[in-house]
Amino acid sequence: MLSSSPTKYAVALFSGFQALDVFGPLDALNILSASTPLELHLLSTTLAPVSTTPVKDPIAGAIGQCVVPTHTYQDAPKDIEVLLVPGGQGTRNPELTQPVVDFIASTFPKVRYLLTVCTGSALAARAGVLDGRNATSNKLAFDWITSNGPNVKWIRHARWVQDGNIWTSSGVSAGIDMIYAFIADQYGQEVADSVATSSEYSRNTDSTNDPFSGLA
Amino acid sequence: MLSSSPTKYAVALFSGFQALDVFGPLDALNILSASTPLELHLLSTTLAPVSTTPVKDPIAGAIGQCVVPTHTYQDAPKDIEVLLVPGGQGTRNPELTQPVVDFIASTFPKVRYLLTVCTGSALAARAGVLDGRNATSNKLAFDWITSNGPNVKWIRHARWVQDGNIWTSSGVSAGIDMIYAFIADQYGQEVADSVATSSEYSRNTDSTNDPFSGLA
Repeated sequence: MLSSSPTKYAVALFSGFQALDVFGPLDALNILSASTPLELHLLSTTLAPVSTTPVKDPIAGAIGQCVVPTHTYQDAPKDIEVLLVPGGQGTRNPELTQPVVDFIASTFPKVRYLLTVCTGSALAARAGVLDGRNATSNKLAFDWITSNGPNVKWIRHARWVQDGNIWTSSGVSAGIDMIYAFIADQYGQEVADSVATSSEYSRNTDSTNDPFSGLA
Repeated sequence: MLSSSPTKYAVALFSGFQALDVFGPLDALNILSASTPLELHLLSTTLAPVSTTPVKDPIAGAIGQCVVPTHTYQDAPKDIEVLLVPGGQGTRNPELTQPVVDFIASTFPKVRYLLTVCTGSALAARAGVLDGRNATSNKLAFDWITSNGPNVKWIRHARWVQDGNIWTSSGVSAGIDMIYAFIADQYGQEVADSVATSSEYSRNTDSTNDPFSGLA
């Protein structure tokens, strides 16, 4: 571990988040934390379990899972170094996600890194923190997402994009490739390779290799 | 959807399950359920949230997440069609996982399909249901896992193995490739392709393409 590597992570949860947007990156961080001690906070508007099924307009017959938050946005620890924002159907609800957007806006100046997966970039765009930055997002929802950030330099063809301290990934599974690139950048290539091997994950290590950009 | 496709799923949780073993397959099923209504039950010994961090001998500095079960093993619905058993550090605890092993043993004769991910196959092996069957598992832990099932035909080189109504995958991420193969088998190739595209996931569609078998 490099001496400056971050150790304090938080995830911004909301009703209707995409499970793999969260647990793809977190599973890699869980494995990493067995050798590199980390802290993780799961944030939500209340301490009630948060479902991957949106509370508003859920799809009939759609299944979901509930995750237990550790802190509210209001009581979130002040020393978060890395904030991860997932996407999911819930991002389509401007009212319910406003607390997430407000939290990103107020917290971004204090964190070292902001990571978004999938349509999580729409929330970051609404917070204004992506203005003038290169960013990417889910490809099937690209037109809707980009409408949330007219001043963002949206990159259509990218598995993930790093611009300074902001990392944004394409849809869902792309968050896994992004977190491994982030781990390699922050903790070293050997550490990233070791975690990926433990997970038996075949990484896409080229951010410009985007098999799904044609969907956008 | 084929008329005989399963719709009733359950996941066997336990303290110290691997997050991606559960949420890799479940995220694909979550997406599938938006067009194909499904039922999902998350089972545990009690209704208390279940952590990916094992309650016994947790690693200092290791992070984890808690998921809310929907039923206990004792009160599990009787009409489960597909039982998914994840792996994880918790599988190393024979005492705490005994209720899972007992549940697999008593439920297997009634389910249509049993799916295991990673070291989840060690629990299925202990339940005796893999005896005489071809199966695979996590490659870094292969020797330990196979010691749990001396009468199982363990396949070292496989991303996943299907033997009749039992599907077993290699470590962690391999569960994602297996669930897409299962979805293709049960709901059709087009459905599997559509879900994978929504997830921007580049599938490994060849069960014999195992980049990690050399670790075993």
